[in-house]
Amino acid sequence: MKTSLLVIHGPNLNLLGSREPEIYGTATLPQINEQISKRAGQLGLDVHCLQTNHEGKIVDLLQEAEHDHKAVILNPAAYTHTSIAIRDTIAAISIPVIEIHLSQISKRESFRHISLTAPVCAGFISGFGHHGYLLAVEAVALLIPELNG
Amino acid sequence: MKTSLLVIHGPNLNLLGSREPEIYGTATLPQINEQISKRAGQLGLDVHCLQTNHEGKIVDLLQEAEHDHKAVILNPAAYTHTSIAIRDTIAAISIPVIEIHLSQISKRESFRHISLTAPVCAGFISGFGHHGYLLAVEAVALLIPELNG
Amino acid sequence: MKTSLLVIHGPNLNLLGSREPEIYGTATLPQINEQISKRAGQLGLDVHCLQTNHEGKIVDLLQEAEHDHKAVILNPAAYTHTSIAIRDTIAAISIPVIEIHLSQISKRESFRHISLTAPVCAGFISGFGHHGYLLAVEAVALLIPELNG
Amino acid sequence: MKTSLLVIHGPNLNLLGSREPEIYGTATLPQINEQISKRAGQLGLDVHCLQTNHEGKIVDLLQEAEHDHKAVILNPAAYTHTSIAIRDTIAAISIPVIEIHLSQISKRESFRHISLTAPVCAGFISGFGHHGYLLAVEAVALLIPELNG
Amino acid sequence: MKTSLLVIHGPNLNLLGSREPEIYGTATLPQINEQISKRAGQLGLDVHCLQTNHEGKIVDLLQEAEHDHKAVILNPAAYTHTSIAIRDTIAAISIPVIEIHLSQISKRESFRHISLTAPVCAGFISGFGHHGYLLAVEAVALLIPELNG
Amino acid sequence: MKTSLLVIHGPNLNLLGSREPEIYGTATLPQINEQISKRAGQLGLDVHCLQTNHEGKIVDLLQEAEHDHKAVILNPAAYTHTSIAIRDTIAAISIPVIEIHLSQISKRESFRHISLTAPVCAGFISGFGHHGYLLAVEAVALLIPELNG
Amino acid sequence: MKTSLLVIHGPNLNLLGSREPEIYGTATLPQINEQISKRAGQLGLDVHCLQTNHEGKIVDLLQEAEHDHKAVILNPAAYTHTSIAIRDTIAAISIPVIEIHLSQISKRESFRHISLTAPVCAGFISGFGHHGYLLAVEAVALLIPELNG
Amino acid sequence: MKTSLLVIHGPNLNLLGSREPEIYGTATLPQINEQISKRAGQLGLDVHCLQTNHEGKIVDLLQEAEHDHKAVILNPAAYTHTSIAIRDTIAAISIPVIEIHLSQISKRESFRHISLTAPVCAGFISGFGHHGYLLAVEAVALLIPELNG
Amino acid sequence: MKTSLLVIHGPNLNLLGSREPEIYGTATLPQINEQISKRAGQLGLDVHCLQTNHEGKIVDLLQEAEHDHKAVILNPAAYTHTSIAIRDTIAAISIPVIEIHLSQISKRESFRHISLTAPVCAGFISGFGHHGYLLAVEAVALLIPELNG
Amino acid sequence: MKTSLLVIHGPNLNLLGSREPEIYGTATLPQINEQISKRAGQLGLDVHCLQTNHEGKIVDLLQEAEHDHKAVILNPAAYTHTSIAIRDTIAAISIPVIEIHLSQISKRESFRHISLTAPVCAGFISGFGHHGYLLAVEAVALLIPELNG
Amino acid sequence: MKTSLLVIHGPNLNLLGSREPEIYGTATLPQINEQISKRAGQLGLDVHCLQTNHEGKIVDLLQEAEHDHKAVILNPAAYTHTSIAIRDTIAAISIPVIEIHLSQISKRESFRHISLTAPVCAGFISGFGHHGYLLAVEAVALLIPELNG
Amino acid sequence: MKTSLLVIHGPNLNLLGSREPEIYGTATLPQINEQISKRAGQLGLDVHCLQTNHEGKIVDLLQEAEHDHKAVILNPAAYTHTSIAIRDTIAAISIPVIEIHLSQISKRESFRHISLTAPVCAGFISGFGHHGYLLAVEAVALLIPELNG
Repeated sequence: MKTSLLVIHGPNLNLLGSREPEIYGTATLPQINEQISKRAGQLGLDVHCLQTNHEGKIVDLLQEAEHDHKAVILNPAAYTHTSIAIRDTIAAISIPVIEIHLSQISKRESFRHISLTAPVCAGFISGFGHHGYLLAVEAVALLIPELNG
Repeated sequence: MKTSLLVIHGPNLNLLGSREPEIYGTATLPQINEQISKRAGQLGLDVHCLQTNHEGKIVDLLQEAEHDHKAVILNPAAYTHTSIAIRDTIAAISIPVIEIHLSQISKRESFRHISLTAPVCAGFISGFGHHGYLLAVEAVALLIPELNG
Repeated sequence: MKTSLLVIHGPNLNLLGSREPEIYGTATLPQINEQISKRAGQLGLDVHCLQTNHEGKIVDLLQEAEHDHKAVILNPAAYTHTSIAIRDTIAAISIPVIEIHLSQISKRESFRHISLTAPVCAGFISGFGHHGYLLAVEAVALLIPELNG
Repeated sequence: MKTSLLVIHGPNLNLLGSREPEIYGTATLPQINEQISKRAGQLGLDVHCLQTNHEGKIVDLLQEAEHDHKAVILNPAAYTHTSIAIRDTIAAISIPVIEIHLSQISKRESFRHISLTAPVCAGFISGFGHHGYLLAVEAVALLIPELNG
Repeated sequence: MKTSLLVIHGPNLNLLGSREPEIYGTATLPQINEQISKRAGQLGLDVHCLQTNHEGKIVDLLQEAEHDHKAVILNPAAYTHTSIAIRDTIAAISIPVIEIHLSQISKRESFRHISLTAPVCAGFISGFGHHGYLLAVEAVALLIPELNG
Repeated sequence: MKTSLLVIHGPNLNLLGSREPEIYGTATLPQINEQISKRAGQLGLDVHCLQTNHEGKIVDLLQEAEHDHKAVILNPAAYTHTSIAIRDTIAAISIPVIEIHLSQISKRESFRHISLTAPVCAGFISGFGHHGYLLAVEAVALLIPELNG
Repeated sequence: MKTSLLVIHGPNLNLLGSREPEIYGTATLPQINEQISKRAGQLGLDVHCLQTNHEGKIVDLLQEAEHDHKAVILNPAAYTHTSIAIRDTIAAISIPVIEIHLSQISKRESFRHISLTAPVCAGFISGFGHHGYLLAVEAVALLIPELNG
Repeated sequence: MKTSLLVIHGPNLNLLGSREPEIYGTATLPQINEQISKRAGQLGLDVHCLQTNHEGKIVDLLQEAEHDHKAVILNPAAYTHTSIAIRDTIAAISIPVIEIHLSQISKRESFRHISLTAPVCAGFISGFGHHGYLLAVEAVALLIPELNG
Repeated sequence: MKTSLLVIHGPNLNLLGSREPEIYGTATLPQINEQISKRAGQLGLDVHCLQTNHEGKIVDLLQEAEHDHKAVILNPAAYTHTSIAIRDTIAAISIPVIEIHLSQISKRESFRHISLTAPVCAGFISGFGHHGYLLAVEAVALLIPELNG
Repeated sequence: MKTSLLVIHGPNLNLLGSREPEIYGTATLPQINEQISKRAGQLGLDVHCLQTNHEGKIVDLLQEAEHDHKAVILNPAAYTHTSIAIRDTIAAISIPVIEIHLSQISKRESFRHISLTAPVCAGFISGFGHHGYLLAVEAVALLIPELNG
Repeated sequence: MKTSLLVIHGPNLNLLGSREPEIYGTATLPQINEQISKRAGQLGLDVHCLQTNHEGKIVDLLQEAEHDHKAVILNPAAYTHTSIAIRDTIAAISIPVIEIHLSQISKRESFRHISLTAPVCAGFISGFGHHGYLLAVEAVALLIPELNG
Repeated sequence: MKTSLLVIHGPNLNLLGSREPEIYGTATLPQINEQISKRAGQLGLDVHCLQTNHEGKIVDLLQEAEHDHKAVILNPAAYTHTSIAIRDTIAAISIPVIEIHLSQISKRESFRHISLTAPVCAGFISGFGHHGYLLAVEAVALLIPELNG
């Protein structure tokens, strides 16, 4: 029986922590993944965390997720604003995808204001820094009864 | 010592539950407020919930909130896309405001895609239906230690 | 049994008659209301006429109208072009709202060309001056059999 | 002495009734014309009804109408949004032209939101289905005293 | 041997003289045609003048002109701004077409600022009122030696 | 029983072959029509081919086609980009219309990039020169079993 | 005899002084009102100062001002960019309204660059901080002889 | 001697058949490939079919195709609207590329209306569902004599 | 008594003849000026011709022209599209200014499509090469009786 | 010690008074300069007034002003909307520049709505006619204590 | 100690030399790389040259470059205009990236006019053909003292 | 024989060094000119350096440069974005012009993102501060053999 959750970190998120901490905070990606795992564990969910810089790879991962996971937490990073391919995959698969951003994208350059992926996601969380991932885990926990119902 | 949280519901949210349930769900505003209070109580927060159809009233409430509350959860509804006045108040007050929407606004008419208030909010949650309010309460709980820190 | 009709005049319409008569005509608001009442009476309808300069008040009035009236004739004036809140209320309530303008809005400044409220109204009448209100009453009379049917 | 009224139905309106009844209603064009004639007769007006799919023909008809008719009721259909030629004719002739649409054009595709002809018409009625034609006849009756005055 | 010149007057130009004289002047179309013929005669050119309100007819006339005329003077009127069909014909035929407008189109509504036909015409004259036709005849006389050369 | 196919060539297509062969090829319209007829005959379809420069005439022909033909192959030429009237007719009639262009319209001027008719057509073929008509006939042959099914 | 002047401060201006002093300066609203009163007194003008966060209230105040005041100094703040209602009131009343902004609005976010109210005001002053109010009082003093003349 | 044809299916096309059949039909990608192979065989062409979710991989495949294939049938799917890289490759290689889409892209979201790749393709086919691939094969058969000629 | 005519050639027109003859022709500026003088002489007009590359100098010349000349023929060249200053001068002076361009500006880059000066000129001539100056002289001759009348 | 003030009048302001008095008033530039000098004298400031039609000259003057003057009052006229060069100079020099316009530029053509220079000026005054210059002098007097402070 | 320089060639640059030489020149990529190495050697720099068609691979390479190289010369080719991911990487890494293009991108299609990567690069060189790479090497040599300083 | 090089510095570049050094660096224009001369001398080129704030003067200088110089290095500064006149001169003269900017213009205000002059220049260098001039000299040295070849 499927009970796990996939977390996909998009391009450049492997650089978190050491760079531009005034925007993205000082937590590194391994530290964030550990926080996610801990909170998911408390809520009875397994978590698998991956990072990639390749748009096509995110499409591949989302397609495969459907077979192995109950939901996806996705930070599409730069691809948020340019990838119709990722949008199409989210729309095509049957499990919910929750979009998350560390910063408030509407505060930044105008080409970051529109998310191509948000309209096909089950929910959207932004601006809470690394706390956003924990809220996304919480959201999955809230949605699962419905999914199971 | 201030430990309470203000929840402001914007225009037409008093009609929730009985209308357009395919978009907004079947929960009524009193039921949602009760859920919020229950979850806030579990996290040790007092909650005060208000609804108004008046833009100027939301400005008034936000200005006053600073003295009585530690954070605000705001669903600006239609004013999200038209009120620079509310945006200016959020930017001016010193307590964090979390913006929340029941539906995914980016799925709807193009004039709802841009939030004037989001860039000055501490965080943004949309698309989870009434669950979004619970996530916003959770977010306040996560942010408070930093605020207190 | 509900048989009455609400007429809501938006901002600045209380100034009708004495000002800019070349655009808005010389009839005052009380005179127009009297004409409306007379024609409605001939068609067997009660009429209640109100004017307000407050967007939020129009939202309040529309929400309440559903309980007391069979239809609404609304001249949103300046809010036609800026109020998503009023649009949302019209879409949410179950009685028909007929939008009316004294002047032909498409003849005026470009920011008056688009009506945010029109797409959710049951019908739209503009450019006939104060006669437009009588046509709107006529329209209600034509629509009522369907509503009663 | 001129006492008649011309009704011009633009392109594809000859298909009314049998097609897309959910948008345009089930009344056929002959049925609508009969309703118009009946109501006009009650108000002491003769009516002449024509339909054409040709933009240039509408220009010809409007130019000729000035000599034979007191007013025109025009449903320009698709040409509403593309014909500057028809607009110019309406502006050039001395009798009033009332623009009418069965559906609410602002609810449809964005290229239907702007009417090129409306700014030069004496009035604009949309969204009431076939009732709109009766309101237009009513409008002519209201305007004629002024014209005769 | 071809030595004649075709003048095509577009939609509503048959109304010249009696209407809106402050914009278009008091000369009627027959008077203008007579002036054109007189000046063309002085320069040794035959002239044929036609008016039509139909876009398709202008396309027909331009296609036929190639066989019977050495050049065309065209006032496309409203079709200037909307007819790609007329533009395509001008581009396709081998004789020069001179575009002429009575008024200065750049002074008028913004939808009249762009001419779709101008880029494929041999020359463009606007704003001189009925004198513009005489200048266009003069232009043909200047161009013919090159054409004959 | 209806088994025939109507081919409508829009404005200026009668000039094919002798002009701008670098864009449109050297085949004349009669030669293209002959190719269409030959291929249609091989596939058991009757073909009727017409050309007109008049937008209104294309509307007329499409309305009539429904009674006499099983499908339409339409090259709207210049009207592709300007005719909402033709679009409305295609949407209103019950037989499929296949849109075809000799050149790749997206390679040309920006005002030719958008087709108003394409969204309501059963299919779209462009860029193959006169071969495109044969592919359109082929397409009809592929679609007919479904239509008959 | 009317000799007084009304000063209307729009939304959030009651927060002046304690917040964002790098943008708005350190003067509080009461201090600014005192400066205005002092300077107006020197010039022989009575002053009445009000602040409100409600758009509709500003419309009400402007309508009433006509009866009691000779001129209005208005800082519409956020409503500068969104309120057609306030614009319409300024255009409708017969006394001059002077628009004033503390900061240079053209230096800020692009949605603050356009003032809907400026085109109907008697004058516009921005960027001088609290000094701007004194200049506006000065402007009234300069305009009054003309008004009285 | 090269006689084969490459078919490239872009991102998410591997999901065909099982998902959103109301848009994309019920045929799976292997079934479509089989149909393509069968029809190509009848026309004397070898076919090689590939699917990838990676933009860069499509660029690689197109570059290599030049050496091994006589033509390419490409369904760029989501990359149609975002990939200048694929466009550049198509423009750079010497063999013809035919663009094909199952649905009519102009019927869908506005960001799908423009194809970046179409202007550099030899032809464009859309809206015929899986039949479109057979038409593309047919198109290659029609073009090959010219290529060989 | 003033009977002379000023011709102002804008920036880079001193390079005419030797450069880009495929666009601007092979006639040099002195040759063009000679043709203008000859034709003006035949029509009884004195001509003064000047060239400058400086926007401010064109403003100076136009201001001075009012005292010494009856009309101005102006080729603003590049300043056509960028100079509001020249536009303002043309609007301010009382003698007519005729705008002339050698090439058809609507055929060129999009930033050359709009003329800032045309709306305030007495007439506009473009696309006839150096013949355009002769037509402009002719236009002055046609306009002078009116000016003298 | 520097105590003087430079006033720069931009293009066409030398024509003030005799032309378009309904827009710009009947005061001539010398009269305005005299008023400025008188008021400046009362406030203890020397004034130097200059007018030029050349953009580059305004840049030169502003650069030099820094050495000789304490502040600049600039009416950039037409260059307000087109000169990035003047903007750059204002931003580069260390003395304050106050922008002033006689008319309300937001009431005029849309290309006059945006000021390129305003964002780098110390303040902006428009719409008060020639009184605006006096207000600008007043503004300098208010700012000087700060500058000296 | 790091003294080497990475050169990354983006999509389709491996096709240089044999194709479209009128745009990109006749030099092949290996020849260009040899020129770069030679010039870099003269200036005491090691060079490593790579080409890839994959956006994600460019992100990977840039992230890794920080550890092994002192600077990067990047020709992002098509990704210049579409890749926010590459932009984000350039902004995140601490070594300077110099953007280079063979052609002048502002001369080409409008979608190539904006570079998403340029605002975060240390410098930008375009239009010099293969010489541009040598200038970029020169630029690194000029910048290194500062980096070392 | 011509071997010299002209360097033109546009408006406000004479202010370099003493102002806004965080953007433009601390080098003064004389120091930069000296560096240019030194480097040019090493490469066997004479250099002539000029600065002007006048657009028309840059046009004059470029026209004259053709006779006396082999190439031009131009920093058009503010005129980059507004001068079609300078663009036309660069296109008209036969010697290459290299455009150079100290800062990265794409990092600054949006009205500085487009260069009107770049599309007609032989090359473009930006963002390297004063080093950019040395790279431009280097570029001339690389281009001269081709020019001489």
